Amino acid sequence: MNAPEKLDAQKFTELLTLTREPFPASRKTWLQGTRHDLRVPVREVTLSNGEVVTLYDTSGPYTDPAAAIDVKCGLPDVRSGWVVDRGDTEPYAGRAPQALDDGGKHDVSDRIAALRAAAAALQRSPRRAKSGANVTQMHYARRGIVTPEMEYVALRENGRREWMGEYLSDAQREQRLRGNAMGARIPDLITPEFVRDEVARGRAIIPANINHTELEPMAIGRNFLVKINANIGNSAVTSSIEEEVEKLVWAIRWGADNVMDLSTGRNIHTTRDWIVRNSPVPIGTVPIYQALEKVGGVAEDLSWEIFRDTLIEQAEQGVDYFTIHAGVRLPFIHLTANRRTGIVSRGGSIMAKWCIAHHQESFLYTRFEEICDIMKAYDVSFSLGDGLRPGSAADANDEAQFAELRTLGELTQIAWKHDVQTMIEGPGHVPMHLIHANMDEQLKHCHEAPFYTLGPLTIDIAPGYDHIASAIGAAMIGWMGTAMLCYVTPKEHLGLPDRDDVKQGIIAYKIAAHAADVAKGHPGARARDDALSKARFEFRWHDQFNLSLDPDTARDFHDETLPKDSSKEAHFCSMCGPKFCSMKITQEVREYAASQGLSEDAALQQGLQAKSEEFKRAGGEIYIPIHPTAVPAQA
Amino acid sequence: MNAPEKLDAQKFTELLTLTREPFPASRKTWLQGTRHDLRVPVREVTLSNGEVVTLYDTSGPYTDPAAAIDVKCGLPDVRSGWVVDRGDTEPYAGRAPQALDDGGKHDVSDRIAALRAAAAALQRSPRRAKSGANVTQMHYARRGIVTPEMEYVALRENGRREWMGEYLSDAQREQRLRGNAMGARIPDLITPEFVRDEVARGRAIIPANINHTELEPMAIGRNFLVKINANIGNSAVTSSIEEEVEKLVWAIRWGADNVMDLSTGRNIHTTRDWIVRNSPVPIGTVPIYQALEKVGGVAEDLSWEIFRDTLIEQAEQGVDYFTIHAGVRLPFIHLTANRRTGIVSRGGSIMAKWCIAHHQESFLYTRFEEICDIMKAYDVSFSLGDGLRPGSAADANDEAQFAELRTLGELTQIAWKHDVQTMIEGPGHVPMHLIHANMDEQLKHCHEAPFYTLGPLTIDIAPGYDHIASAIGAAMIGWMGTAMLCYVTPKEHLGLPDRDDVKQGIIAYKIAAHAADVAKGHPGARARDDALSKARFEFRWHDQFNLSLDPDTARDFHDETLPKDSSKEAHFCSMCGPKFCSMKITQEVREYAASQGLSEDAALQQGLQAKSEEFKRAGGEIYIPIHPTAVPAQA
Repeated sequence: MNAPEKLDAQKFTELLTLTREPFPASRKTWLQGTRHDLRVPVREVTLSNGEVVTLYDTSGPYTDPAAAIDVKCGLPDVRSGWVVDRGDTEPYAGRAPQALDDGGKHDVSDRIAALRAAAAALQRSPRRAKSGANVTQMHYARRGIVTPEMEYVALRENGRREWMGEYLSDAQREQRLRGNAMGARIPDLITPEFVRDEVARGRAIIPANINHTELEPMAIGRNFLVKINANIGNSAVTSSIEEEVEKLVWAIRWGADNVMDLSTGRNIHTTRDWIVRNSPVPIGTVPIYQALEKVGGVAEDLSWEIFRDTLIEQAEQGVDYFTIHAGVRLPFIHLTANRRTGIVSRGGSIMAKWCIAHHQESFLYTRFEEICDIMKAYDVSFSLGDGLRPGSAADANDEAQFAELRTLGELTQIAWKHDVQTMIEGPGHVPMHLIHANMDEQLKHCHEAPFYTLGPLTIDIAPGYDHIASAIGAAMIGWMGTAMLCYVTPKEHLGLPDRDDVKQGIIAYKIAAHAADVAKGHPGARARDDALSKARFEFRWHDQFNLSLDPDTARDFHDETLPKDSSKEAHFCSMCGPKFCSMKITQEVREYAASQGLSEDAALQQGLQAKSEEFKRAGGEIYIPIHPTAVPAQA
Repeated sequence: MNAPEKLDAQKFTELLTLTREPFPASRKTWLQGTRHDLRVPVREVTLSNGEVVTLYDTSGPYTDPAAAIDVKCGLPDVRSGWVVDRGDTEPYAGRAPQALDDGGKHDVSDRIAALRAAAAALQRSPRRAKSGANVTQMHYARRGIVTPEMEYVALRENGRREWMGEYLSDAQREQRLRGNAMGARIPDLITPEFVRDEVARGRAIIPANINHTELEPMAIGRNFLVKINANIGNSAVTSSIEEEVEKLVWAIRWGADNVMDLSTGRNIHTTRDWIVRNSPVPIGTVPIYQALEKVGGVAEDLSWEIFRDTLIEQAEQGVDYFTIHAGVRLPFIHLTANRRTGIVSRGGSIMAKWCIAHHQESFLYTRFEEICDIMKAYDVSFSLGDGLRPGSAADANDEAQFAELRTLGELTQIAWKHDVQTMIEGPGHVPMHLIHANMDEQLKHCHEAPFYTLGPLTIDIAPGYDHIASAIGAAMIGWMGTAMLCYVTPKEHLGLPDRDDVKQGIIAYKIAAHAADVAKGHPGARARDDALSKARFEFRWHDQFNLSLDPDTARDFHDETLPKDSSKEAHFCSMCGPKFCSMKITQEVREYAASQGLSEDAALQQGLQAKSEEFKRAGGEIYIPIHPTAVPAQA
């Protein structure tokens, strides 16, 4: 073993050290399905008062201390049994690897050669649909079949609701807080049959390539929890394979429901092998990026044959959804000529260049049904790309954007004719007042196929903070019905995000998605907020941290000024100090009232109410004295 | 001079070194008013293509290299001439300083003694209204008087619009992007008379204590730019006077329109002296905090006399607005008993405790007209505090909150009877679907008095990131009509914000406020976005950075991966690399088209359109070849 190889091994070890520890006070447990091999992970957080809060868990086996993880072997198999049992697929030799798979200028260093060899060992023998078969979840759903994937999704969406009882039992509060679903219809309990129905209608997708057997299935649809996607991937300028695997594990730790590998540099095939084999979440790609690498970066040299071969290559690897910019049609390109920022989608601009160079309609559009044939043989879902999305507020909601959206609606119906699962990508840069029209138009033209938006960014002047500028738009469009929010990191427009940028982007988008779930009135979404707020009010600092989206940061921020353990019991923090803590004072008021015999909240309310009425009658003489020395008791 | 004093001097010097440099490519210039001493600062950013963009400037003399700054002397006088010329005020000896002014347990160290002595030297001899006079901007406005403050505001709100011509000249684009003002009525040009009318109606305030002569006046109202407030101030646990002055200068550098000094610890009077004398922006306080310090932190020991004396003390110092929690009435307190998080306002909980202890209605409510008498003698504005705001999603929009809001509406009318300028504070924690009701109720009950909200936070589970959770709510409610957004920092709920937290909170809120201005269709708000997006599209990296809300961070993020100067001319960044930069490819398309004789955007569009129609007729043979070697020219 030469030096560079040893370095890699060490790097991977460091990676695992960094990201495998469970969240504080948390353990992974499983909800058991009807099959013995159908177990849905959830995260249990044990609070200091004995309550147990159960949370949706995207982190995969990495946060399970009992799991043996070796990234060189990939994750344990979750669902090949389900796939094989359906009896409609077959293993086959697969496409022969080609030198070009890692790009025209692939890396020939020892280090990469070793990684490539290890990746080849990782790669499982692929399966595909038997001749004439269609193996998509949509195809099964439309035939009335509830797959294990659908059952898995149902269990996962519900989670373990028992713990929410205390928080959702106050009918008056629940009535006041009932969300505004904006047209979504989310049942109190998600059944496998409900999942099947949503998938059959095309209103939800379960991205689940039959060759991604490590997958823990999840659903994307407006009647489910709002999901988020994190983009990773190297570029020609920076990043390495190891960093990208590390970003994957890091991204799902913080809550990414999906990850897109947008690598565009060298070693693109090998990078993807490492990512897919180690990912419990669906992996999406933009296959045109790899195709472009294969032709040395010359868009004009792209061809249907190279692209088609790339689709098969990636489908065999197990990619769960492909972004296909089939809506960038030749007749739309002139619509971008007067734009402030032209075409800002990488895939979109590549295809625009090809179309103009060849005087031809895009092969993604003309060959769309052939693409469907590939998709349905592996159950790869479409993510119909918005290659003409606005790249600035000035270009929002213009004709180029909406002409493409209408085309994506037409393509959705073609995909559905083949029972291929489909979602629709959306913008981009859109000021707040123009966001709703995006959702309306998408619902109207794309027949409720899930919408998957990038932000949108509500302003253009926040480089360095575009995760915030876009989280505003993402929360709003999520509330309106967008099913998945593609994150934006602080590095957007400036450079390739690093590990910390990935986390910042994810947390901002977990906030946006959760805000949308709460506003939609998703059953139980608000219970976690209630549990945290109760912990806050009761000065259970550890519980407050542990229920946070990011317990580490919450704890670190608190400890900057009050690091001692004893402060974790203190009835104040450094923001207000002990005398000015409103919660402390409120509790003193309540406690004093309780000491007067009003021991329960309800009783306290009743007591205070009675006193209040007494006050109204008597005009002033009221309430129990709070401080015996200041006012004689029962004065 | 002893050692601690020298330390202080050095600290102040360091402070100035840190925050006085102008923004990159920027210089401060002034718009000249009708009086020779009425000059409104603006920031000019010179772009690399020769364009000059002019921005609203809150940073005061600190970013003017020509200004001599000595925090020990305070800022130059801006408006005492205006105040004196009105002839309705008189200087007087002022209230005698008391040991208690710095709190019952004030610091007796040499260091603080020196700062206190220096602060006493800073303090100008106060003025007040002559007997029977009313010196509020509202009083003048209602009598038809356009004050220099109103003219200042008009010039400031308009800025230098000439530069926007290029960006706002495309009628078609403007039509598409026209905002949704949500009931606001913002004229194309703000005239002094318009400002007067808005102030007279109570729909805007100009916080401008006659004793804050260093002030650069600004307006808070729904028909003006959305403003933001930054809270600073020490607590009993942490921070020092020096740090708070530093935070002030830092906060206005990044765009805080107002600053509240929420100090609650020791040396509260001295800290405020330093802050007011060095602040070009309005300073708000919560006087009950200082009153509580004076009674050793025992809420029950508060009295009207102590509170009244504190109001006069702070009015003489020049505080521009007081948060007064006069809506926390005794009969409302029981409404909080069943809340998830009780009372979360510090002032609110203090007054609740007082009310209960004394079996009495709050003296802030019963003495409200006496408070008005003080306010109008100095032109201190009311910020009617929302002491019963919700502290969690579970408590949003409940009866306690709205009962108080209705009371604030009643109090607004009493304040207006005295011509006292008034704004209304709002929540807090509100899920997205309940935000609109807050604005509706406020408009309905408070007669369009400016709304000033804290966030609201849309979820509770983001401690460490509450600037983001709340920027979502702030942007939405700003769009709906809130006039000023009180920032939330990442430290909210966890500890006292430090300098970097202040910046993070401000940038998040500048994003929210700007997103609101753009959505409302504020004339010209979007021009800065357009200028930045144009710079982005043209790969003018320096211009992109310099037009950002935070040029330093934008540049640093870019330079992390591409630090070389030559990269600032590069037609790509590390996010996509050179081959995958969509903007680069788009430009290549446009440039090639241009080289074929279609040199202008309009001509290019025309040309492409003609080609497109040709394509539709011919069914495929179309467009100029992009790559001469790939396809023969004119083939």
